[in-house]
Amino acid sequence: MKVAIAKERQTGEARVSASPDSVKKMVSLGMTVAVESGAGNGASFSDAAYKEAGAEISKSAKTLLADADVVLRVARPEADEVGDCPKGTLVIGQMNPYQETKKLEALAKQGLTVFALEFLPRISRAQAMDTLSSQANLAGYKAVIDAAAEYGRALPMMMTPAGRINPAKIMVMGAGVAGLQAIATARRLGGRVYATDVRPAAKEQVESLGAEFVAVEDEEFKAAETAGGYAKEMSDAYKKKQAELISESIADMDMVITTAQIPGRPAPRLIDEDMVKSMRPGSVIFDLAAEGGGNCALTQPGKMATKHGVKIIGYQNVPSRLAADASMLYANNLFNFLSLLYDKESKALKVDWEDEVVKGTLLSRDGALVHSRLTGRAEET
Amino acid sequence: MKVAIAKERQTGEARVSASPDSVKKMVSLGMTVAVESGAGNGASFSDAAYKEAGAEISKSAKTLLADADVVLRVARPEADEVGDCPKGTLVIGQMNPYQETKKLEALAKQGLTVFALEFLPRISRAQAMDTLSSQANLAGYKAVIDAAAEYGRALPMMMTPAGRINPAKIMVMGAGVAGLQAIATARRLGGRVYATDVRPAAKEQVESLGAEFVAVEDEEFKAAETAGGYAKEMSDAYKKKQAELISESIADMDMVITTAQIPGRPAPRLIDEDMVKSMRPGSVIFDLAAEGGGNCALTQPGKMATKHGVKIIGYQNVPSRLAADASMLYANNLFNFLSLLYDKESKALKVDWEDEVVKGTLLSRDGALVHSRLTGRAEET
Repeated sequence: MKVAIAKERQTGEARVSASPDSVKKMVSLGMTVAVESGAGNGASFSDAAYKEAGAEISKSAKTLLADADVVLRVARPEADEVGDCPKGTLVIGQMNPYQETKKLEALAKQGLTVFALEFLPRISRAQAMDTLSSQANLAGYKAVIDAAAEYGRALPMMMTPAGRINPAKIMVMGAGVAGLQAIATARRLGGRVYATDVRPAAKEQVESLGAEFVAVEDEEFKAAETAGGYAKEMSDAYKKKQAELISESIADMDMVITTAQIPGRPAPRLIDEDMVKSMRPGSVIFDLAAEGGGNCALTQPGKMATKHGVKIIGYQNVPSRLAADASMLYANNLFNFLSLLYDKESKALKVDWEDEVVKGTLLSRDGALVHSRLTGRAEET
Repeated sequence: MKVAIAKERQTGEARVSASPDSVKKMVSLGMTVAVESGAGNGASFSDAAYKEAGAEISKSAKTLLADADVVLRVARPEADEVGDCPKGTLVIGQMNPYQETKKLEALAKQGLTVFALEFLPRISRAQAMDTLSSQANLAGYKAVIDAAAEYGRALPMMMTPAGRINPAKIMVMGAGVAGLQAIATARRLGGRVYATDVRPAAKEQVESLGAEFVAVEDEEFKAAETAGGYAKEMSDAYKKKQAELISESIADMDMVITTAQIPGRPAPRLIDEDMVKSMRPGSVIFDLAAEGGGNCALTQPGKMATKHGVKIIGYQNVPSRLAADASMLYANNLFNFLSLLYDKESKALKVDWEDEVVKGTLLSRDGALVHSRLTGRAEET
């Protein structure tokens, strides 16, 4: 069984879908692995390292893919990139399924069997395959590092003979995987960290990382907090009070990291222009939801912009900015997923199409889109 | 008595010699303070903030300086920048005296009384005026932040369902003020930190920050360690053994921060091309001695260059990259120095020319260079 790792060709993508480590694991299970020359450059993985791990290095993506059984991808390939693959080739990666259904339909029509890891069911045995989490974790770290690099002051408190530097005040909006790692990183760097989340149950996790949870703690909040993650949505009256509190708090922050994303929908607007205006000159906002349009009204996706004296960072594909570790974890995720589809005895693919993980992630088979969440969606995109 | 704060005009200088806080302190002592409009922009200090602190805002540097008793500077002004100052005006700041003696002679001939804070005597009452230390401290912090932003991996260890990220290995060369803050910052970020210094006595400080001191710990080392800071220079045989140990250690590092500078002399060469070659692709070197020619043979002053897969950062004027805090501390240093020259009763300058701090820093008076370390040096520069 041959696994092909071609260079990712999307603009700005430095990651790669296999690491020398993951290649080694694949080879030890009896797979043949071929890597396009230079595929690992952006992630500091050399051809030599892949070769040493047991991969063949191929100069041409065309040759590489012509007899591939499996293609591992960071992102959805364009149709012409995988045009040489045999029908039935498995293509596995993050496919951005909601936004690019039409392009996925084209891959389906080419006869490719496409899996989108964004659709992994949230069950414990799928955790080790969860690319969204592995990448979000690094994005949360990197957002704080990049914001700290753009900030004209130090984050930790410093007592010096020339005076005291106060710790930076940092607000993290959204306490998911990215938000929690952003909190941890900002705390490491000595910042005073505040966090918000629409789920009152997030308070405990936020506080366990040494940050302060910013919320209107009325009766409704307390009821929701104890109800845990499965609480019903908060009332409109509560949301209004909470928004006012956040709006006031932001004015006092030196740095804000926003992380609120909703799969398949535009990012919620958390920071409007007046809130930006209320911040001190030199403050920094890192908007991790730039790809979904941004949590901040003034975010320019893909850029850093200074508005009202505040630096607003809207870099896209933040995990790619930490390409070596992001690729390493992503490659492990893919290896774990691929293991599920592979029979060690016969050293061949053996897919259980009824498996919950397989069914959950399978987008296309036998020439058509088959995923229930995509059916009828191709026309909209 | 009028204190003038003009915009710094050197390329790449974002700092300013007074902060709204230091202005407030000067005004409260009865000084008149005038600030050139926009002088604080690079440090996120607005004209409005200076005004609120009690400063006059002036549109023109010319007018500002024409009746100044004291000019506070971040760096040595060009002769034409202070051409309008009355004879006898005090000009106080970092003057880069060894490298630019000739230009300082020109200022002397204009009749300016110039003080170079680089020449502050190392006595405890001068600590609060010590710009070299206040700026080196921030440079050490910023070097690690910038290196972390360029590094394609995370610094802390992370245990994730997709695998473990190992902590980055970071070597700090030189355990002075900058080196110690670099160690502290790298430790905060979760790195495994190693440090070296030519003074065996530095071992204790390095270890107290949680880093490992890299040294050949033979009899000579142990004798020097207990002798403290006043130990004699190490033998050539020792230096050779130590250099070999460092050379071996570097190959295993992900990040190296070099901080070795010697006033008035080129930076010592600590890292040669072979040592760079021995590092893994994707590693990062931040050379804080770039201004003095660099501790690394491949450093390109003012730039980031990638050589043998290693990113080598040679940014100059690193404190200016953290302009807000750097200016705040620098402004406090200058205020503390200025207080020494000022009589609160008469609200006028009253300089004790015999004071150790005044004598130590005074470069020029009554039309000539007067500092013993500069006499005869103007011809060399």
